[in-house]
Amino acid sequence: MDINRRWVLARRPVGLVDPSDFRLEEAKRPDPGPGQFVVRQHYLSLAPVMAQYVLDGGTIERPVAIGETMRGRGVGRVIASRHPTFREGDIVHGPFGWQDYAVSDGARLTYLSRYAGRVAPMSTAIGVLGITGYTAYFGLELAAPKPGDRLLVSGAVGGVGSSVGQIARIRGCTPIVAVCGGAEKARLATQRLGYDHAIDYRSDDIAERLDDLFADGIDVYFDNVGGAVLEAALDRLRQKARVVLCGAISQYMADGRPVGPSNYFKLAYANAAMIGFQIYAFADRYAEAEEALADWIARGLLVWQENRLDGLEVMPSALAGLYQGANVGKQVVCIAPE
Amino acid sequence: MDINRRWVLARRPVGLVDPSDFRLEEAKRPDPGPGQFVVRQHYLSLAPVMAQYVLDGGTIERPVAIGETMRGRGVGRVIASRHPTFREGDIVHGPFGWQDYAVSDGARLTYLSRYAGRVAPMSTAIGVLGITGYTAYFGLELAAPKPGDRLLVSGAVGGVGSSVGQIARIRGCTPIVAVCGGAEKARLATQRLGYDHAIDYRSDDIAERLDDLFADGIDVYFDNVGGAVLEAALDRLRQKARVVLCGAISQYMADGRPVGPSNYFKLAYANAAMIGFQIYAFADRYAEAEEALADWIARGLLVWQENRLDGLEVMPSALAGLYQGANVGKQVVCIAPE
Repeated sequence: MDINRRWVLARRPVGLVDPSDFRLEEAKRPDPGPGQFVVRQHYLSLAPVMAQYVLDGGTIERPVAIGETMRGRGVGRVIASRHPTFREGDIVHGPFGWQDYAVSDGARLTYLSRYAGRVAPMSTAIGVLGITGYTAYFGLELAAPKPGDRLLVSGAVGGVGSSVGQIARIRGCTPIVAVCGGAEKARLATQRLGYDHAIDYRSDDIAERLDDLFADGIDVYFDNVGGAVLEAALDRLRQKARVVLCGAISQYMADGRPVGPSNYFKLAYANAAMIGFQIYAFADRYAEAEEALADWIARGLLVWQENRLDGLEVMPSALAGLYQGANVGKQVVCIAPE
Repeated sequence: MDINRRWVLARRPVGLVDPSDFRLEEAKRPDPGPGQFVVRQHYLSLAPVMAQYVLDGGTIERPVAIGETMRGRGVGRVIASRHPTFREGDIVHGPFGWQDYAVSDGARLTYLSRYAGRVAPMSTAIGVLGITGYTAYFGLELAAPKPGDRLLVSGAVGGVGSSVGQIARIRGCTPIVAVCGGAEKARLATQRLGYDHAIDYRSDDIAERLDDLFADGIDVYFDNVGGAVLEAALDRLRQKARVVLCGAISQYMADGRPVGPSNYFKLAYANAAMIGFQIYAFADRYAEAEEALADWIARGLLVWQENRLDGLEVMPSALAGLYQGANVGKQVVCIAPE
């Protein structure tokens, strides 16, 4: 195949991301220049933060330009290399964009996969054995979880959340409670992903369930959603509680100005801290996380949960689906069989 | 004098605290029972948090009941004692309420003053050498200030703020920037209270001044006000910044539901933390703070700033004045000459 298909941003979304904001183009498959390699991507990652890539001023990175290939991480095999360390056949993951083939100099945010493709499928290089898994690992570390800590996770069966509960279990937290949307996710949370209880925010009374499950309050809240769940958690913090800000999916697509937690000052009453982080701040420790996660997988302590779709064609609609809560686990798209 | 005058809560305020919400009553001066002492109060403290004492559900403590003596700290001398350790003549500070005389068992939040009345006037026992000073001391400690840290303080010439800038200077922070209301306060901040610069939120463009004074961002923001200043600071955090939540005076008296910082997720972009605290959590370390503060005063490194009014009669109007920004420094009321 000499053709490289790629999704470019056709127009800047207004409000919700719509599949028609993207356009599929074809170009010639690239060749590597000196110091470069070409990767044939097999799996592309989808994550809630991506809406921020295409909205003006939504994130710390510059927004994707109109006509530019959509930003995103993927994993595949090096098919041609003039790079000193990345060799033909290597499994690599990096910010390769929504396209079949990518040229890379291997520099920025691009990594050789040491375990994905061995202890777990290649696709986990953009899931539990990649940035998504590292986010769960380091984000929870920021909360310094101790045995017996009472822990709440929102977005609990999403890409990051589906690992957070299991790592919290390894750390000895109890109970470990999931907030997620829908009965299927709630069942998965408790039956597969190590949560003791699951709250379905679509059908349960969140306040009532939290009062029931956290009669003595919450020690650690790992927040992927913001909004009403964040406020409900802040109202129930134990002394010295920690709130980790990982994501704010309820805010990414909000019309108009996002809403802050009106009860933020509960942090003072509880002598508590709210801790934000960017996973890229931990880049020099990714190897540590990769090894720990691979070890837990090998020992049966950590399972992954993927929601896999097929075909590069589905990328825009799969992204839009994230904000409808369509995905169970890490959303990946297989764009070429291995 | 056998009469004890006291202010009781006459009705629960709606919105802003109004002097007419309180009623002055007279009763017989109390005598100590077994294990008790009686204190003749000389100075009463006023602090922004007090509005929370009279509003329903505003704080973690139960609200003052209708007809109950208004809550508040004061300092005075023990005039009669049947207590094993507090002796006649001792200077004590505690939650003695808005009244001339108080009976105490010395147990809760009541302390012998070791330095106020010696290295500084008695009134500093409810200011820099009391809970107010400890709040500055431990609050800033939570931010772990390092030499060279760029520091912003709001409510910068209030009771707590007037010490924070000076302690930050001792810790080596630079620049140390005040946010306060009015030209007089701004002048005081830089000429007396150790601030390098002062922003007058009433006349300055806060965003513009912050951009100017913190071209590389803010390492530590010590927040006494919440609201727009908190949002402006969050927009300018440096990597690994710390925001200390000490007070939220802009919110205490807000009509309706308080407003949270809509840009709270900037904490994630900056790998930053927002840290709340209650000074009472540090009770077992008050002696350390008292000694450090007294030592800095003795060495000329720390000055105090009081706004002193006279007469028990003024208490309700002085409290209302706090929310107009009437006070410069710690607001105290002298209710009896020493």
